[in-house]
Amino acid sequence: MQPNLAMASVRCPVMSRASPTTREALGRYAQLRSYKRGSNIFLHSSPANSGYVLISGWVKVSRVQASGSMALLNLHAPGEVFGFSDSIRRVPRSVDAEAATDCVVLSVPYHSLRSAMRNDASFNDVLLGHSFERNDHLLRQLEGMKVLNSLQRLACFLIRHAKPHGKHLLVKPTFEKHLVASYLGIRPESLSRNLAKLRDHGVQDSPNGIEITDPDALKKLVGEESLIFCNLPEQVG
Amino acid sequence: MQPNLAMASVRCPVMSRASPTTREALGRYAQLRSYKRGSNIFLHSSPANSGYVLISGWVKVSRVQASGSMALLNLHAPGEVFGFSDSIRRVPRSVDAEAATDCVVLSVPYHSLRSAMRNDASFNDVLLGHSFERNDHLLRQLEGMKVLNSLQRLACFLIRHAKPHGKHLLVKPTFEKHLVASYLGIRPESLSRNLAKLRDHGVQDSPNGIEITDPDALKKLVGEESLIFCNLPEQVG
Repeated sequence: MQPNLAMASVRCPVMSRASPTTREALGRYAQLRSYKRGSNIFLHSSPANSGYVLISGWVKVSRVQASGSMALLNLHAPGEVFGFSDSIRRVPRSVDAEAATDCVVLSVPYHSLRSAMRNDASFNDVLLGHSFERNDHLLRQLEGMKVLNSLQRLACFLIRHAKPHGKHLLVKPTFEKHLVASYLGIRPESLSRNLAKLRDHGVQDSPNGIEITDPDALKKLVGEESLIFCNLPEQVG
Repeated sequence: MQPNLAMASVRCPVMSRASPTTREALGRYAQLRSYKRGSNIFLHSSPANSGYVLISGWVKVSRVQASGSMALLNLHAPGEVFGFSDSIRRVPRSVDAEAATDCVVLSVPYHSLRSAMRNDASFNDVLLGHSFERNDHLLRQLEGMKVLNSLQRLACFLIRHAKPHGKHLLVKPTFEKHLVASYLGIRPESLSRNLAKLRDHGVQDSPNGIEITDPDALKKLVGEESLIFCNLPEQVG
């Protein structure tokens, strides 16, 4: 098995739980594909011929409104799957998927998925369990949208994506601000206003990205009981 | 089969798609239970011994935050299922379920669900398909939270729950306003302010509930492309 395929098998919640035989079968016709940042992986309404495992990079999933505005529904991180459910049901894509950074994906043809479901009852359990987890995550995200205000949602987003960098934490500006605003359900101008407000809570712009000098202040703003929303894994499906 | 059990089999997306044999098996140990408005059907952290089909009335599903505030996650209507996923996975309840009105539910023990899954592979497909649909609905709800402002969300809620009444449409005040506010993710005081704003769009208080005298004005406010959010079925699961 190729190294990054093996990595996907370990990190991906569907591949890692499948039986070795089924994993092997899924890998047999699967193809690794590279996408440049900004290119489409699939488009709304197109046939759903494959499910995808994200190997490296980030993928954004969105839906364009009739008005032309875009709702960012999901940001996928390595190890996550996307595009499975339309593919298994053989319905057209309900969303757009685009490479948010350069990325590598594993494309698993739907006929491999369907035959794994036919031949291995435990694989159905894996898919069902995974779909239930995804429901939980979506419900949790919905809950966050309802109980947190826009400033707290932004703070959560920063906490979730911060990585250690020298003495502080850093959120690298992988995404454009308007994407983050769309993801959080706030207007771009409110995002800038909220970022300015966060200066009082240990957040500052730096040449490398957004620096968090006082994570405790940020966590206090979110509130002890709501920190769970900061640790949300990105939803998979 | 009892008449309301037969009704549930027709209207419920899980029961209606199960094979007749499996439906019969699920019904064998199922029990009809009545709940008075305001009583608990299950509580967060309790063992998930059953999945439920709502026969009549409304059920609200919520999660209490550590701060004591409550996030209303779902309002279930007759025919919908709830509490299935925790029960199938044998994990404790992740939410509270309470009778929002007097209601009747069909309680299906988890061992019936598990044995149906073991004995009938097509029932697994039914559950998986249903879970995928629920994901779609949650994603659509999340999208609505992101692309609609609070006034539009309220307008959507009214359009969705309006029933013909004389010359106009009427939304019966089945729920307290603070519940609706929580469901829509807005503060109770904003709800009142928004209801007042809607007077300019054909909405008025009446002794019977909230009357919609000009549905077109309300739809115009939501916007053609966003009317899809008004037709969301309540999510099931």
